[in-house]
Amino acid sequence: MGDSFGKLFAITTFGESHGPAVGVVIDGCPAGVALSEADIQAELDRRRPGQSLLTTQRKEADLARILSGVFEGKTTGTALAILVENDDQRSKDYTEMKELYRPSHADYTYQVKYGVRDWRGGGRASARETIARVAAGAVAKKILRQAHGVETLAWVSQVHTIRDDTLPQAVTSEAVEANPVRCPDPDAARLMAQRIEEARKQGDSVGGIVSARVAGCPPGVGEPVFDKLTADLAKGLMSIPAARGVEFGLGFGAVELTGTQHNDSFVMEGDRVRTATNRSGGIQGGISNGEDLLLRVAFKPTATINSPQDTVTLDGRKAQLKAKGRHDPCVLPRAVPIVEAMIHLVILDHLMRFAGRTLRG
Amino acid sequence: MGDSFGKLFAITTFGESHGPAVGVVIDGCPAGVALSEADIQAELDRRRPGQSLLTTQRKEADLARILSGVFEGKTTGTALAILVENDDQRSKDYTEMKELYRPSHADYTYQVKYGVRDWRGGGRASARETIARVAAGAVAKKILRQAHGVETLAWVSQVHTIRDDTLPQAVTSEAVEANPVRCPDPDAARLMAQRIEEARKQGDSVGGIVSARVAGCPPGVGEPVFDKLTADLAKGLMSIPAARGVEFGLGFGAVELTGTQHNDSFVMEGDRVRTATNRSGGIQGGISNGEDLLLRVAFKPTATINSPQDTVTLDGRKAQLKAKGRHDPCVLPRAVPIVEAMIHLVILDHLMRFAGRTLRG
Amino acid sequence: MGDSFGKLFAITTFGESHGPAVGVVIDGCPAGVALSEADIQAELDRRRPGQSLLTTQRKEADLARILSGVFEGKTTGTALAILVENDDQRSKDYTEMKELYRPSHADYTYQVKYGVRDWRGGGRASARETIARVAAGAVAKKILRQAHGVETLAWVSQVHTIRDDTLPQAVTSEAVEANPVRCPDPDAARLMAQRIEEARKQGDSVGGIVSARVAGCPPGVGEPVFDKLTADLAKGLMSIPAARGVEFGLGFGAVELTGTQHNDSFVMEGDRVRTATNRSGGIQGGISNGEDLLLRVAFKPTATINSPQDTVTLDGRKAQLKAKGRHDPCVLPRAVPIVEAMIHLVILDHLMRFAGRTLRG
Amino acid sequence: MGDSFGKLFAITTFGESHGPAVGVVIDGCPAGVALSEADIQAELDRRRPGQSLLTTQRKEADLARILSGVFEGKTTGTALAILVENDDQRSKDYTEMKELYRPSHADYTYQVKYGVRDWRGGGRASARETIARVAAGAVAKKILRQAHGVETLAWVSQVHTIRDDTLPQAVTSEAVEANPVRCPDPDAARLMAQRIEEARKQGDSVGGIVSARVAGCPPGVGEPVFDKLTADLAKGLMSIPAARGVEFGLGFGAVELTGTQHNDSFVMEGDRVRTATNRSGGIQGGISNGEDLLLRVAFKPTATINSPQDTVTLDGRKAQLKAKGRHDPCVLPRAVPIVEAMIHLVILDHLMRFAGRTLRG
Repeated sequence: MGDSFGKLFAITTFGESHGPAVGVVIDGCPAGVALSEADIQAELDRRRPGQSLLTTQRKEADLARILSGVFEGKTTGTALAILVENDDQRSKDYTEMKELYRPSHADYTYQVKYGVRDWRGGGRASARETIARVAAGAVAKKILRQAHGVETLAWVSQVHTIRDDTLPQAVTSEAVEANPVRCPDPDAARLMAQRIEEARKQGDSVGGIVSARVAGCPPGVGEPVFDKLTADLAKGLMSIPAARGVEFGLGFGAVELTGTQHNDSFVMEGDRVRTATNRSGGIQGGISNGEDLLLRVAFKPTATINSPQDTVTLDGRKAQLKAKGRHDPCVLPRAVPIVEAMIHLVILDHLMRFAGRTLRG
Repeated sequence: MGDSFGKLFAITTFGESHGPAVGVVIDGCPAGVALSEADIQAELDRRRPGQSLLTTQRKEADLARILSGVFEGKTTGTALAILVENDDQRSKDYTEMKELYRPSHADYTYQVKYGVRDWRGGGRASARETIARVAAGAVAKKILRQAHGVETLAWVSQVHTIRDDTLPQAVTSEAVEANPVRCPDPDAARLMAQRIEEARKQGDSVGGIVSARVAGCPPGVGEPVFDKLTADLAKGLMSIPAARGVEFGLGFGAVELTGTQHNDSFVMEGDRVRTATNRSGGIQGGISNGEDLLLRVAFKPTATINSPQDTVTLDGRKAQLKAKGRHDPCVLPRAVPIVEAMIHLVILDHLMRFAGRTLRG
Repeated sequence: MGDSFGKLFAITTFGESHGPAVGVVIDGCPAGVALSEADIQAELDRRRPGQSLLTTQRKEADLARILSGVFEGKTTGTALAILVENDDQRSKDYTEMKELYRPSHADYTYQVKYGVRDWRGGGRASARETIARVAAGAVAKKILRQAHGVETLAWVSQVHTIRDDTLPQAVTSEAVEANPVRCPDPDAARLMAQRIEEARKQGDSVGGIVSARVAGCPPGVGEPVFDKLTADLAKGLMSIPAARGVEFGLGFGAVELTGTQHNDSFVMEGDRVRTATNRSGGIQGGISNGEDLLLRVAFKPTATINSPQDTVTLDGRKAQLKAKGRHDPCVLPRAVPIVEAMIHLVILDHLMRFAGRTLRG
Repeated sequence: MGDSFGKLFAITTFGESHGPAVGVVIDGCPAGVALSEADIQAELDRRRPGQSLLTTQRKEADLARILSGVFEGKTTGTALAILVENDDQRSKDYTEMKELYRPSHADYTYQVKYGVRDWRGGGRASARETIARVAAGAVAKKILRQAHGVETLAWVSQVHTIRDDTLPQAVTSEAVEANPVRCPDPDAARLMAQRIEEARKQGDSVGGIVSARVAGCPPGVGEPVFDKLTADLAKGLMSIPAARGVEFGLGFGAVELTGTQHNDSFVMEGDRVRTATNRSGGIQGGISNGEDLLLRVAFKPTATINSPQDTVTLDGRKAQLKAKGRHDPCVLPRAVPIVEAMIHLVILDHLMRFAGRTLRG
């Protein structure tokens, strides 16, 4: 259970790290959208391992193949399936994990939940699962951009203790993609890259923060009560492997301001209602107010590390694990397109709900 | 849309601040659970306004009435409805808000979304909506306690800049309920109360952090991929009015540790698999591992304040607002039972999903 | 579980026959719809017992009270709750049923499912549950009529062996409401009334068929594959107590025609595509084609009869039951507004899904 | 939308007739079930075209490939994906349909709904879509059989005007599979085969009825109110292409009995509660009572026929269509495994919901 996400633009994903393939079915894609495999591939390539020395050295082509839902270059409105075959599977890198639980990984919890688990490369708990999210997100991104001019930009704003304090409104796509860390400030990016490389050499890992800004989200998106835009974004973002926290606008920082300091005054800009400041991160009462959406996601350091760790075996004996695979010492650079994908999926789903509500008496 | 929450223990809530009543329907409550209105009232009383000078001075009895789903003191397994009639409605306190948007409140976003809004006391966006959550949460709490020994405890760990650093495992229910702030450390509680009182006098407001610990959650609860326990808890918690961020285990703090520092080693305790530390907050790969669940929620300062604020009118003119109602200068003390309710609702729902999966071949 | 119905115009109902109240929460009602309690009452009055000698003689006022979601006479777009308090509850009529299972009623199946049951008047399995459907259907009806000119008309086309063969296109609302049976042909209606009265005198009951025609449903409503309009209507209609079968267009009669006899040729009517015949009942491939929707629902004879019947007790002894309550000897006349309600709920829900899909690239 | 079915054992299907592949993702499959591609292939082979002269002469191997969710021969509890690649695609057979609407097919309704359609072989509205249902149903069948001894048997009980009146309890799997019509009575089967062959020669088609019996369904399965077992079965069955009606127990025939004639008396059989008769078809109040489930589904004659038919073109001109493809003159024999698949999917889903409800206080 839990392999589906979204209500109107609803995706269902499948696939294990070392199984034949991973993929996604989109139920609810609007019809008539120009879409090609290249649109999807562009995003998959941003997520792909082996892009630089900073990420895992596994070579995976991750080629997207559309199996249904597109005819003569346009979406048909019926189920849209995308498949990515797996390759470069070195299951032997993982044979040690067959009998051991990797600390802070999903090995133990899957085993206790299901009584069985695909131990090869993390199975369903592998980060390869996110290929399906990114593929579906690429479709959502195209629709959002074409139909509404919604543009999402995510970037790495912290790696371990190194922060980039560039203001969200100053970040550009070009600056983010200009370096392998995906940090818009080149100096911070350089330091972050060094820190990641250090961690890799030491058989260790580091975490960090991905920040994001969404421009062009129209006001009125999000539902009252449970399906607030903050709530559904939080769910989507916290479902990304290794995510440990999420915050909107000033987030945890809002705690140390008073109401008079934190509230965003309303002002008129022509005939448009704007806020003078954007401490709310574009969402008030769970519904977008037309300002930029601002959010941040914290990722823990990668659980799989190439250093010895104490653990236990499936049959309850003490043991020591030293992982041998080619693991990301830091997931942050590759997390950027995944964060964007989840944001795209949530916003498009909510925009479609909003459209469905316009049937007035 | 968005008035429902949960998949198997599914609640649907209704009601505006100044309408006739608020309430909840629980679809999926297990049968045979001993349940009385007193069970629900106990939790509502913890959430009720007017408990102390720290909260709003509105007097609301908030009496729960069970309308269906209980027969001869036991749940029947069919839809369980709970109603709380509204009273002490001073709509006139809000007449000024009819034509104005309160900064950082939901007034503008509701108006732009629906083209109409119940402006009395925030309407559906009022914190009175949370009565329904707490009522449903009380039912979930009783089932969790009886059937599984799951015990949730939330408390105020920060108000504005005042922190209480009591370790989660040291917090007791008695300490939390011993003061009106619901902060387990009496010294911190006293300072927090002063700060809240200051804010009230100044027509200002303050935010803070609610922390929570769940004991007794069995391992295996939570689903892979999208319905991770972290993801569904994040959604539930971020749907609480004024929530701005949520984190699990070390949360944003995990960012500054390396993998070797952050990973929780596995150890055997008799024949039970435990972790030597609990930096993961009891959830790994989105599934509970049997350790205490640990999480924190950030709340912004209350948006409605009794100080003058710049805003605009419905017809687009500049204006100044000075709210006249009796508002909470700090939502934190009353947020504690709401946070607990959302945690109860998510965990029970997931426990029921897990039970449904045990039908094996 | 199963107390909710619909995806975008989603209703959740609650209430037992002899509990305090029955009601419904509508999640997803469009905003800005003019709606009063009188709109709802008009439909409840058509469903109400005691309208004539043909139905149960219980006197129930069934007064609708809107608890939320309407402000200043218009829907707000947030959860709309409607409550109907129960009265005239003669629980003592049912004390015999406390220990017995009524044949072909839900007594046994509820007991075995839940291990507990509200035996008073059928509890949740009572036909009083349908009050909530009719109340929600009244809201859907108003929106469908105002926003789309969709008009649904249902009528009794058979009672026991007496058939009315009036062609669907010739049936008028006036003819249906002109007699207590709700059969458009006055001669057939008279015979049906006699048959029902006979059954009542004999402590017996009779079943029948409700037919329905929906005019004005635009083409394109319904989804491919599982959520076909036929499929969702079938679910909604088969969920009505005592329903035993449902058919669309020629239904079971289509079986005895060949393809050349059954197919509906397409013809142009001005610039509109029409079918020359309507054997498909307005739905092809699960999607409306713009012609009238035509369907029929079979209802079994009422299970609760005032004749002695063999049964068993809760503790497994043979017994004989003779029900003492005031029961409908035939549910058909009162089933008419219930069938209409379910049709309204399904069509509005699907219209809203269709609207949500129009967000094109 | 509408490509998903089920709540706990939830399937999502995809694929067009002449696209690269069709497939299904099962979200919620219990873990630890022994499952191989052969289990799935056995059911696909029963559905496959070209089994006899009675069905379409297209040759499709329809080989099932499991892409995820099975490890070392057992289900893992995570998303289970099954893919069937398409082959033998003669798109040119359908080029005429590109510009025309086939009468009583989904061509017009898809075009008006989506503004675009894959006209090759019916696209998503093709019966090839049912491959995915049968594949998922094969998994459900195995679990139902192993975990509960639930056995479903469907058969053709009518083709055009030829009926087989074998009593449901007398039908055996051997008798059904003994002839290509899948009618348990060999004499009726011979006549049906002749009638189908006649229709084929005449470029015409015939419809019929599939009956089914489910043995071993435990009592208590099905939900009150909307998710009655009858209601969810009706939805599942009415979603099969060409289905026009469904009935349970005596169905439409129940109309002509009185309550005293129709009610099923309860009797004790040892310590088990049974009914003396089974006119209810094993479902009372929407919940199974432990008796055999009995139902019937009406299928219209195939819409695509090789006789000339009046229709119109996409640009609104009159036209005549004579289909050239190799079409089933009667879908009934191949509908048998599809009906079984839908029954399996509904019952397993409901059994899992029931299990999830056993968490008692």
